[in-house]
Amino acid sequence: ETAFTFLLGIGMEPRCRCIKTESRRIGSYIQKVELFPPSPQCEDTEIIATMKRSGREICLEPTAPWVKKVIEKILAK
Amino acid sequence: ETAFTFLLGIGMEPRCRCIKTESRRIGSYIQKVELFPPSPQCEDTEIIATMKRSGREICLEPTAPWVKKVIEKILAK
Repeated sequence: ETAFTFLLGIGMEPRCRCIKTESRRIGSYIQKVELFPPSPQCEDTEIIATMKRSGREICLEPTAPWVKKVIEKILAK
Repeated sequence: ETAFTFLLGIGMEPRCRCIKTESRRIGSYIQKVELFPPSPQCEDTEIIATMKRSGREICLEPTAPWVKKVIEKILAK
């Protein structure tokens, strides 16, 4: 099991980062948004928002229209 | 100077991450894209792409139309 854990620990992320995604709106106190395109490690597009102050990371639902709007709003600033 | 460095080292990033931005197209081997909305530490929107394999980080020009398209493409996957 140690060798297995070791193998998982090297190189890129071995699997998807998000177990579930938030489809409800989150507040606007976003410090950053990370976009991960599909890859051999995870076939889903993953979007992770990091909140200001708390530093909490929240997986956002890529298909939710408000998520697209949040990203467009950041790009327009 | 040590105390100053120490103060800069704690808390949030003290200033903008990008010194200059890339307005030419980069390849599609993007591992992730980070979006940073304007903040007290940096008044600019910052977009940083991390490339696959090399892990190289490239600051993208937020106003470049192709940058918006790259992000929309990720969201559409």
